[in-house]
Amino acid sequence: MEKGTLFVVSAPSGCGKGSILRPILKEDKSIYYSVSATTRQPREEDVDGVTYRFMTKEGFEELIARNGFFEYACYCGNYYGTPKKPVQDNLDAGNDVILEIETQGAFNIKKEMPEAVLIFILPPSLKELRRRLMKRGSEDEEVINKRMSEAIREIELAKDYDFVIINDGLEEAIADFKAVCRIAKLKKNTKNIINEVLNNA
Amino acid sequence: MEKGTLFVVSAPSGCGKGSILRPILKEDKSIYYSVSATTRQPREEDVDGVTYRFMTKEGFEELIARNGFFEYACYCGNYYGTPKKPVQDNLDAGNDVILEIETQGAFNIKKEMPEAVLIFILPPSLKELRRRLMKRGSEDEEVINKRMSEAIREIELAKDYDFVIINDGLEEAIADFKAVCRIAKLKKNTKNIINEVLNNA
Repeated sequence: MEKGTLFVVSAPSGCGKGSILRPILKEDKSIYYSVSATTRQPREEDVDGVTYRFMTKEGFEELIARNGFFEYACYCGNYYGTPKKPVQDNLDAGNDVILEIETQGAFNIKKEMPEAVLIFILPPSLKELRRRLMKRGSEDEEVINKRMSEAIREIELAKDYDFVIINDGLEEAIADFKAVCRIAKLKKNTKNIINEVLNNA
Repeated sequence: MEKGTLFVVSAPSGCGKGSILRPILKEDKSIYYSVSATTRQPREEDVDGVTYRFMTKEGFEELIARNGFFEYACYCGNYYGTPKKPVQDNLDAGNDVILEIETQGAFNIKKEMPEAVLIFILPPSLKELRRRLMKRGSEDEEVINKRMSEAIREIELAKDYDFVIINDGLEEAIADFKAVCRIAKLKKNTKNIINEVLNNA
Protein backbone atom coordinates (compact mmCIF):
# COMPACT_ATOMS: atom_id res chain seq x y z
CA MET A 1 0.00 0.00 0.00
CA GLU A 2 1.42 3.34 -1.02
CA LYS A 3 1.53 5.81 1.88
CA GLY A 4 -0.42 9.06 1.69
CA THR A 5 1.22 12.47 1.43
CA LEU A 6 1.24 14.94 4.31
CA PHE A 7 0.55 18.56 3.30
CA VAL A 8 1.39 21.05 6.03
CA VAL A 9 -0.29 24.42 5.42
CA SER A 10 0.64 27.71 7.09
CA ALA A 11 -0.76 31.16 6.47
CA PRO A 12 -1.08 34.33 8.48
CA SER A 13 -4.59 34.98 9.73
CA GLY A 14 -6.59 36.67 6.94
CA CYS A 15 -4.88 34.95 4.00
CA GLY A 16 -7.96 32.96 3.06
CA LYS A 17 -6.58 29.56 4.01
CA GLY A 18 -10.04 28.30 4.89
CA SER A 19 -11.60 29.46 1.62
CA ILE A 20 -8.90 27.61 -0.32
CA LEU A 21 -9.02 24.38 1.67
CA ARG A 22 -12.80 24.04 2.05
CA PRO A 23 -13.60 23.32 -1.64
CA ILE A 24 -10.57 21.04 -1.92
CA LEU A 25 -11.63 18.95 1.07
CA LYS A 26 -15.20 18.90 -0.20
CA GLU A 27 -14.10 17.69 -3.63
CA ASP A 28 -11.75 14.95 -2.45
CA LYS A 29 -13.26 13.06 0.46
CA SER A 30 -10.21 10.79 0.74
CA ILE A 31 -8.15 13.64 2.21
CA TYR A 32 -8.00 13.60 6.01
CA TYR A 33 -8.06 17.05 7.57
CA SER A 34 -6.12 17.01 10.82
CA VAL A 35 -8.17 18.34 13.73
CA SER A 36 -6.47 20.00 16.70
CA ALA A 37 -6.93 18.67 20.20
CA THR A 38 -7.77 20.92 23.13
CA THR A 39 -8.57 20.78 26.82
CA ARG A 40 -10.84 23.83 26.74
CA GLN A 41 -14.55 23.40 27.44
CA PRO A 42 -16.63 22.68 24.30
CA ARG A 43 -18.85 25.59 23.24
CA GLU A 44 -22.31 25.26 21.80
CA GLU A 45 -21.11 25.34 18.18
CA ASP A 46 -18.38 22.75 18.81
CA VAL A 47 -18.56 19.23 17.44
CA ASP A 48 -16.08 16.80 18.96
CA GLY A 49 -13.70 15.54 16.29
CA VAL A 50 -14.76 18.25 13.83
CA THR A 51 -14.01 21.66 15.34
CA TYR A 52 -11.66 20.14 17.91
CA ARG A 53 -10.87 16.85 19.58
CA PHE A 54 -11.79 17.47 23.22
CA MET A 55 -9.48 15.92 25.79
CA THR A 56 -9.09 15.99 29.55
CA LYS A 57 -6.07 17.78 30.99
CA GLU A 58 -4.75 14.45 32.28
CA GLY A 59 -5.18 12.77 28.90
CA PHE A 60 -3.46 15.65 27.15
CA GLU A 61 -0.50 15.67 29.56
CA GLU A 62 -0.13 11.93 29.28
CA LEU A 63 0.04 12.28 25.49
CA ILE A 64 2.65 15.05 25.83
CA ALA A 65 4.73 12.69 27.97
CA ARG A 66 4.49 10.00 25.30
CA ASN A 67 5.68 12.46 22.60
CA GLY A 68 2.26 12.18 21.00
CA PHE A 69 2.02 15.74 19.62
CA PHE A 70 3.71 17.37 16.66
CA GLU A 71 3.37 20.57 18.67
CA TYR A 72 1.29 21.89 21.52
CA ALA A 73 0.89 25.12 23.44
CA CYS A 74 -0.95 26.44 26.46
CA TYR A 75 -3.20 29.52 26.09
CA CYS A 76 -5.23 30.90 28.97
CA GLY A 77 -4.79 27.72 30.96
CA ASN A 78 -5.98 25.42 28.14
CA TYR A 79 -3.85 23.11 26.03
CA TYR A 80 -4.04 23.09 22.22
CA GLY A 81 -2.06 20.65 20.10
CA THR A 82 -1.74 18.50 16.97
CA PRO A 83 -1.85 14.80 17.80
CA LYS A 84 0.42 12.59 15.72
CA LYS A 85 -1.55 9.36 15.74
CA PRO A 86 -4.55 10.20 13.51
CA VAL A 87 -2.17 11.80 11.01
CA GLN A 88 0.11 8.78 10.90
CA ASP A 89 -2.78 6.29 10.80
CA ASN A 90 -4.26 8.06 7.79
CA LEU A 91 -0.93 8.28 5.96
CA ASP A 92 -0.37 4.57 6.61
CA ALA A 93 -3.84 3.83 5.22
CA GLY A 94 -2.83 5.63 2.00
CA ASN A 95 -4.85 8.79 2.62
CA ASP A 96 -3.42 12.24 2.02
CA VAL A 97 -3.50 14.50 5.07
CA ILE A 98 -3.83 18.27 5.30
CA LEU A 99 -2.60 19.82 8.52
CA GLU A 100 -2.81 23.54 9.34
CA ILE A 101 -0.14 24.80 11.65
CA GLU A 102 1.98 27.91 12.23
CA THR A 103 5.56 28.15 10.97
CA GLN A 104 7.46 26.74 13.95
CA GLY A 105 5.17 23.71 14.10
CA ALA A 106 5.59 23.22 10.35
CA PHE A 107 9.39 23.14 10.60
CA ASN A 108 9.17 20.68 13.53
CA ILE A 109 7.06 18.34 11.42
CA LYS A 110 9.45 18.63 8.46
CA LYS A 111 12.34 17.69 10.74
CA GLU A 112 10.48 14.62 11.96
CA MET A 113 8.96 13.71 8.57
CA PRO A 114 11.15 15.10 5.76
CA GLU A 115 8.71 13.79 3.14
CA ALA A 116 6.03 16.23 4.40
CA VAL A 117 5.17 18.97 1.89
CA LEU A 118 5.17 22.48 3.39
CA ILE A 119 2.83 24.96 1.73
CA PHE A 120 2.64 28.63 2.68
CA ILE A 121 -0.28 30.82 1.63
CA LEU A 122 0.53 34.50 1.14
CA PRO A 123 -1.79 37.49 0.89
CA PRO A 124 -1.31 39.59 -2.29
CA SER A 125 0.14 42.39 -0.15
CA LEU A 126 0.35 43.44 3.48
CA LYS A 127 -1.93 46.38 2.67
CA GLU A 128 -4.58 43.95 1.44
CA LEU A 129 -4.05 41.73 4.48
CA ARG A 130 -4.69 44.68 6.81
CA ARG A 131 -7.80 45.55 4.81
CA ARG A 132 -9.09 41.98 5.18
CA LEU A 133 -8.41 41.93 8.91
CA MET A 134 -10.14 45.29 9.36
CA LYS A 135 -13.14 44.18 7.30
CA ARG A 136 -13.85 41.50 9.88
CA GLY A 137 -14.75 44.44 12.09
CA SER A 138 -14.58 42.44 15.27
CA GLU A 139 -11.05 43.36 16.23
CA ASP A 140 -9.60 46.62 17.46
CA GLU A 141 -6.55 48.47 16.08
CA GLU A 142 -4.17 46.95 18.64
CA VAL A 143 -5.15 43.35 17.82
CA ILE A 144 -4.85 44.09 14.10
CA ASN A 145 -1.39 45.62 14.55
CA LYS A 146 -0.32 42.57 16.52
CA ARG A 147 -1.61 40.24 13.79
CA MET A 148 0.19 42.30 11.15
CA SER A 149 3.57 42.00 12.88
CA GLU A 150 2.98 38.27 13.38
CA ALA A 151 2.16 38.00 9.67
CA ILE A 152 5.39 39.74 8.66
CA ARG A 153 7.43 37.48 10.92
CA GLU A 154 5.78 34.41 9.36
CA ILE A 155 6.04 35.62 5.75
CA GLU A 156 9.79 36.03 6.18
CA LEU A 157 9.93 32.29 6.88
CA ALA A 158 7.88 31.39 3.80
CA LYS A 159 11.04 31.08 1.70
CA ASP A 160 11.89 27.86 3.57
CA TYR A 161 8.61 26.22 2.54
CA ASP A 162 8.43 23.75 -0.34
CA PHE A 163 5.71 25.77 -2.08
CA VAL A 164 4.37 29.30 -1.73
CA ILE A 165 0.91 30.20 -3.03
CA ILE A 166 -0.31 33.75 -3.30
CA ASN A 167 -4.02 34.22 -2.67
CA ASP A 168 -4.74 37.03 -5.10
CA GLY A 169 -7.98 35.50 -6.38
CA LEU A 170 -9.60 32.42 -4.92
CA GLU A 171 -10.01 30.43 -8.13
CA GLU A 172 -6.34 30.77 -9.12
CA ALA A 173 -5.19 30.01 -5.57
CA ILE A 174 -7.29 26.82 -5.48
CA ALA A 175 -5.86 25.78 -8.86
CA ASP A 176 -2.36 26.46 -7.53
CA PHE A 177 -3.03 24.38 -4.44
CA LYS A 178 -4.29 21.46 -6.53
CA ALA A 179 -1.27 21.71 -8.84
CA VAL A 180 1.02 21.68 -5.80
CA CYS A 181 -0.63 18.48 -4.52
CA ARG A 182 -0.33 16.84 -7.93
CA ILE A 183 3.33 17.80 -8.37
CA ALA A 184 4.31 16.88 -4.83
CA LYS A 185 3.04 13.35 -5.43
CA LEU A 186 4.73 13.23 -8.83
CA LYS A 187 8.04 14.34 -7.28
CA LYS A 188 7.72 11.81 -4.49
CA ASN A 189 7.23 9.02 -7.00
CA THR A 190 9.86 10.08 -9.53
CA LYS A 191 12.66 7.86 -8.28
CA ASN A 192 10.35 4.87 -7.89
CA ILE A 193 8.92 5.43 -11.34
CA ILE A 194 12.34 5.56 -13.01
CA ASN A 195 13.44 2.38 -11.23
CA GLU A 196 10.16 0.69 -12.02
CA VAL A 197 10.46 1.54 -15.70
CA LEU A 198 14.03 0.31 -15.85
CA ASN A 199 13.22 -2.89 -13.92
CA ASN A 200 10.19 -3.67 -16.07
CA ALA A 201 12.55 -4.19 -19.01
CA MET B 1 7.93 42.89 -18.65
CA GLU B 2 8.20 39.53 -16.92
CA LYS B 3 10.26 37.03 -18.92
CA GLY B 4 8.69 33.81 -20.17
CA THR B 5 9.62 30.38 -18.87
CA LEU B 6 11.61 27.89 -20.93
CA PHE B 7 10.34 24.30 -20.72
CA VAL B 8 12.80 21.77 -22.11
CA VAL B 9 11.13 18.44 -22.86
CA SER B 10 12.89 15.14 -23.44
CA ALA B 11 11.40 11.71 -24.00
CA PRO B 12 12.53 8.55 -25.70
CA SER B 13 10.87 7.94 -29.05
CA GLY B 14 7.47 6.30 -28.46
CA CYS B 15 6.68 8.00 -25.13
CA GLY B 16 3.83 10.05 -26.58
CA LYS B 17 5.54 13.42 -26.27
CA GLY B 18 3.70 14.75 -29.32
CA SER B 19 0.28 13.61 -28.06
CA ILE B 20 0.88 15.42 -24.77
CA LEU B 21 2.24 18.65 -26.26
CA ARG B 22 -0.20 19.04 -29.16
CA PRO B 23 -3.32 19.81 -27.08
CA ILE B 24 -1.31 22.03 -24.74
CA LEU B 25 0.05 24.14 -27.62
CA LYS B 26 -3.40 24.23 -29.20
CA GLU B 27 -4.98 25.46 -25.95
CA ASP B 28 -2.42 28.15 -25.14
CA LYS B 29 -1.46 30.06 -28.27
CA SER B 30 0.96 32.27 -26.31
CA ILE B 31 3.41 29.37 -25.96
CA TYR B 32 6.17 29.39 -28.58
CA TYR B 33 7.16 25.93 -29.77
CA SER B 34 10.83 25.90 -30.73
CA VAL B 35 11.38 24.60 -34.27
CA SER B 36 14.65 22.91 -35.23
CA ALA B 37 16.80 24.23 -38.04
CA THR B 38 18.19 21.98 -40.74
CA THR B 39 20.19 22.11 -43.96
CA ARG B 40 18.46 19.09 -45.51
CA GLN B 41 16.30 19.58 -48.60
CA PRO B 42 12.64 20.38 -47.80
CA ARG B 43 10.27 17.49 -48.59
CA GLU B 44 6.80 17.91 -49.99
CA GLU B 45 5.11 17.84 -46.55
CA ASP B 46 7.55 20.36 -45.07
CA VAL B 47 6.51 23.92 -44.17
CA ASP B 48 9.40 26.28 -43.53
CA GLY B 49 9.25 27.52 -39.94
CA VAL B 50 6.74 24.83 -38.94
CA THR B 51 8.27 21.41 -39.51
CA TYR B 52 11.78 22.86 -39.72
CA ARG B 53 13.56 26.13 -40.36
CA PHE B 54 15.43 25.49 -43.59
CA MET B 55 18.91 27.00 -43.82
CA THR B 56 21.81 26.88 -46.23
CA LYS B 57 24.95 25.02 -45.19
CA GLU B 58 26.86 28.32 -45.14
CA GLY B 59 24.24 30.04 -43.01
CA PHE B 60 24.19 27.14 -40.58
CA GLU B 61 27.97 27.03 -40.23
CA GLU B 62 28.12 30.78 -39.74
CA LEU B 63 25.57 30.45 -36.92
CA ILE B 64 27.64 27.62 -35.36
CA ALA B 65 30.67 29.92 -35.43
CA ARG B 66 28.66 32.65 -33.65
CA ASN B 67 27.59 30.16 -30.91
CA GLY B 68 24.03 30.54 -32.16
CA PHE B 69 22.82 26.99 -31.37
CA PHE B 70 21.94 25.35 -28.08
CA GLU B 71 23.06 22.13 -29.78
CA TYR B 72 23.53 20.85 -33.29
CA ALA B 73 24.53 17.61 -34.97
CA CYS B 74 25.29 16.31 -38.43
CA TYR B 75 23.37 13.27 -39.76
CA CYS B 76 23.91 11.89 -43.25
CA GLY B 77 25.65 15.07 -44.35
CA ASN B 78 22.89 17.40 -43.12
CA TYR B 79 22.97 19.67 -40.10
CA TYR B 80 20.19 19.74 -37.50
CA GLY B 81 20.17 22.16 -34.59
CA THR B 82 18.26 24.31 -32.11
CA PRO B 83 18.83 28.04 -32.76
CA LYS B 84 19.02 30.20 -29.64
CA LYS B 85 17.67 33.47 -31.00
CA PRO B 86 13.96 32.69 -31.52
CA VAL B 87 13.88 31.06 -28.08
CA GLN B 88 15.49 34.04 -26.40
CA ASP B 89 13.39 36.57 -28.33
CA ASN B 90 10.20 34.85 -27.21
CA LEU B 91 11.31 34.58 -23.58
CA ASP B 92 12.22 38.27 -23.62
CA ALA B 93 8.78 39.08 -25.04
CA GLY B 94 7.23 37.29 -22.05
CA ASN B 95 6.15 34.14 -23.93
CA ASP B 96 6.72 30.69 -22.51
CA VAL B 97 8.74 28.42 -24.78
CA ILE B 98 8.61 24.64 -25.20
CA LEU B 99 11.69 23.06 -26.66
CA GLU B 100 12.06 19.34 -27.42
CA ILE B 101 15.57 18.01 -27.23
CA GLU B 102 17.45 14.86 -26.19
CA THR B 103 19.12 14.56 -22.80
CA GLN B 104 22.58 15.92 -23.63
CA GLY B 105 21.10 19.01 -25.28
CA ALA B 106 18.80 19.51 -22.29
CA PHE B 107 21.70 19.50 -19.85
CA ASN B 108 23.61 21.95 -22.07
CA ILE B 109 20.68 24.35 -22.00
CA LYS B 110 20.33 24.03 -18.22
CA LYS B 111 24.01 24.90 -17.84
CA GLU B 112 23.56 28.01 -19.97
CA MET B 113 20.12 28.96 -18.59
CA PRO B 114 19.71 27.56 -15.07
CA GLU B 115 16.17 28.92 -14.87
CA ALA B 116 15.08 26.52 -17.68
CA VAL B 117 12.68 23.82 -16.49
CA LEU B 118 13.65 20.30 -17.59
CA ILE B 119 10.76 17.87 -18.05
CA PHE B 120 11.22 14.20 -18.87
CA ILE B 121 8.36 12.07 -20.19
CA LEU B 122 8.55 8.39 -19.31
CA PRO B 123 6.67 5.43 -20.75
CA PRO B 124 4.76 3.34 -18.16
CA SER B 125 7.26 0.52 -18.72
CA LEU B 126 9.93 -0.55 -21.18
CA LYS B 127 7.69 -3.46 -22.21
CA GLU B 128 4.96 -0.98 -23.16
CA LEU B 129 7.50 1.23 -24.95
CA ARG B 130 8.62 -1.73 -27.08
CA ARG B 131 4.98 -2.56 -27.84
CA ARG B 132 4.36 1.04 -28.99
CA LEU B 133 7.46 1.06 -31.18
CA MET B 134 6.48 -2.28 -32.73
CA LYS B 135 2.90 -1.10 -33.35
CA ARG B 136 4.24 1.55 -35.68
CA GLY B 137 5.13 -1.38 -37.92
CA SER B 138 7.50 0.63 -40.04
CA GLU B 139 10.67 -0.37 -38.26
CA ASP B 140 12.50 -3.67 -38.15
CA GLU B 141 13.70 -5.56 -35.07
CA GLU B 142 17.20 -4.09 -35.24
CA VAL B 143 15.99 -0.47 -35.29
CA ILE B 144 13.60 -1.18 -32.42
CA ASN B 145 16.37 -2.77 -30.34
CA LYS B 146 18.56 0.25 -30.98
CA ARG B 147 15.77 2.62 -29.90
CA MET B 148 15.18 0.53 -26.79
CA SER B 149 18.81 0.76 -25.67
CA GLU B 150 18.81 4.51 -26.40
CA ALA B 151 15.62 4.81 -24.32
CA ILE B 152 17.20 3.00 -21.36
CA ARG B 153 20.28 5.22 -21.53
CA GLU B 154 18.05 8.33 -21.53
CA ILE B 155 15.70 7.13 -18.79
CA GLU B 156 18.69 6.64 -16.49
CA LEU B 157 19.33 10.40 -16.86
CA ALA B 158 15.71 11.35 -16.07
CA LYS B 159 16.54 11.60 -12.35
CA ASP B 160 18.51 14.78 -13.09
CA TYR B 161 15.46 16.49 -14.63
CA ASP B 162 13.37 18.98 -12.67
CA PHE B 163 10.17 17.03 -13.31
CA VAL B 164 9.39 13.53 -14.53
CA ILE B 165 6.00 12.69 -16.00
CA ILE B 166 4.87 9.16 -16.69
CA ASN B 167 2.66 8.75 -19.74
CA ASP B 168 0.39 5.97 -18.51
CA GLY B 169 -2.81 7.56 -19.83
CA LEU B 170 -2.89 10.66 -21.98
CA GLU B 171 -5.38 12.68 -19.95
CA GLU B 172 -3.45 12.27 -16.70
CA ALA B 173 -0.14 13.00 -18.44
CA ILE B 174 -1.52 16.23 -19.93
CA ALA B 175 -2.86 17.27 -16.51
CA ASP B 176 0.58 16.51 -15.02
CA PHE B 177 2.29 18.59 -17.70
CA LYS B 178 -0.03 21.54 -17.06
CA ALA B 179 0.53 21.26 -13.30
CA VAL B 180 4.29 21.22 -13.88
CA CYS B 181 4.07 24.44 -15.92
CA ARG B 182 1.94 26.11 -13.25
CA ILE B 183 4.23 25.08 -10.40
CA ALA B 184 7.42 25.97 -12.27
CA LYS B 185 6.15 29.52 -12.69
CA LEU B 186 5.00 29.63 -9.06
CA LYS B 187 8.44 28.45 -7.90
CA LYS B 188 10.19 30.98 -10.12
CA ASN B 189 8.13 33.78 -8.62
CA THR B 190 8.24 32.68 -5.00
CA LYS B 191 11.16 34.82 -3.91
CA ASN B 192 9.83 37.86 -5.80
CA ILE B 193 6.38 37.36 -4.31
CA ILE B 194 7.68 37.21 -0.75
CA ASN B 195 9.76 40.33 -1.24
CA GLU B 196 6.90 42.10 -2.96
CA VAL B 197 4.52 41.30 -0.12
CA LEU B 198 7.01 42.47 2.47
CA ASN B 199 7.84 45.64 0.52
CA ASN B 200 4.18 46.49 -0.04
CA ALA B 201 3.80 47.01 3.70
